[in-house]
Amino acid sequence: MTMTMYDLAGADPALRFSPYCWRTRFALAHKGLPVETIPWRFTDTAVLAFSGQGRVPTIVDEGKVVHDSWAIAEYLEDRHAMPALFGGPLGRAHARFVNAWADSVLVGAIARFIVRDILDVIDSKDRDYFRTSREARFGATLEQVQAGREERLPAFRDLLAPVRLTLRNQAFLGGTLPSYADHIVAGTLMWPRCVSRFPLLADDDPVAVWFGRMLDQYGGLGRAAKTP
Amino acid sequence: MTMTMYDLAGADPALRFSPYCWRTRFALAHKGLPVETIPWRFTDTAVLAFSGQGRVPTIVDEGKVVHDSWAIAEYLEDRHAMPALFGGPLGRAHARFVNAWADSVLVGAIARFIVRDILDVIDSKDRDYFRTSREARFGATLEQVQAGREERLPAFRDLLAPVRLTLRNQAFLGGTLPSYADHIVAGTLMWPRCVSRFPLLADDDPVAVWFGRMLDQYGGLGRAAKTP
Repeated sequence: MTMTMYDLAGADPALRFSPYCWRTRFALAHKGLPVETIPWRFTDTAVLAFSGQGRVPTIVDEGKVVHDSWAIAEYLEDRHAMPALFGGPLGRAHARFVNAWADSVLVGAIARFIVRDILDVIDSKDRDYFRTSREARFGATLEQVQAGREERLPAFRDLLAPVRLTLRNQAFLGGTLPSYADHIVAGTLMWPRCVSRFPLLADDDPVAVWFGRMLDQYGGLGRAAKTP
Repeated sequence: MTMTMYDLAGADPALRFSPYCWRTRFALAHKGLPVETIPWRFTDTAVLAFSGQGRVPTIVDEGKVVHDSWAIAEYLEDRHAMPALFGGPLGRAHARFVNAWADSVLVGAIARFIVRDILDVIDSKDRDYFRTSREARFGATLEQVQAGREERLPAFRDLLAPVRLTLRNQAFLGGTLPSYADHIVAGTLMWPRCVSRFPLLADDDPVAVWFGRMLDQYGGLGRAAKTP
């Protein structure tokens, strides 16, 4: 039975933009595991009641339900050792640092560039929830959060220094081939790519060059994704 | 023949404070490899002429000369597989991200809290070099760089979020046991510990609790290190 995955979608069900769901999509493709993705909206929490929680990504694999992108990556690695996402306990432990960096630094920084743009692509039924919850989180309107983004771009690009410096010495965060560390960062960068036309990366940035390679992996999965 | 390591020292030759040398000290202790450390000062570049460069850590192991803390860690792992620093190619590749984060985020951030304090502990022959080179790098006097540090402390502690978040799920950055990822970050934190009395970490910060565990590893190597 093909695995199913609940995947955050926009008003257009083909638009998939969650940074966490993209980590899982890349990890599944890396393992060569087919998946049927089910478009899911922020307010579809009842649809996930069977999983005991209300967020995506959530996968169902032969009756087994797993949610949370990190937990799914661990589940996939434990079920199907190769091709490796982590390559052993230390590779897994160290990937957690990359995940923690992406979650505590990268996601919040990107949000300040695209949070208002997201409102334009999500389903109309999600808009009140999205505006209210995000404005409470930021303590400002979505328009205020996103304002002045051109001026804030150099500081954002500086935040990517650890990725840039790593890529000076290896083609991928996983070394000679992509690993889950690449899925974490590239998955997170799929989010602005799929909700906004604002160019976060300069074309000649080594991070952009690497991201281009990641878009081409797995038969061009990332490259083919719908963008606004 | 016991390995030798050139190790940055203060006016007091027992004061060892380089964040890069400490990474190597921890890695050597992790491997259980004895080492004879040779106190070295910033201006002792001629002493290292044999190595073709002028910086520490530099090790000499059975006639083989290796410099740069990352290159030394790779050399040690390739020569002595266990106990593992990296645990395989993916663990090594992912540790590079931790190294890149420490070098591009942590080192520069810590410098702004202790760079003037360093002047008080280094050898008198190093002081002109240190002040001139660091003031050129920062574009400000050492006193100006370090000024207002109490007010800047909350922002510094926020920078440690990726470490803190990782440690929510595992005892060490290496998982259940320390790995080179722990040596990178703990080695970097040995630097302020050994040159300054300024308390960078709150006692109840999970990062401080973990650092305390790292100080106790390897027979209390870090804990026993001379501080000002």
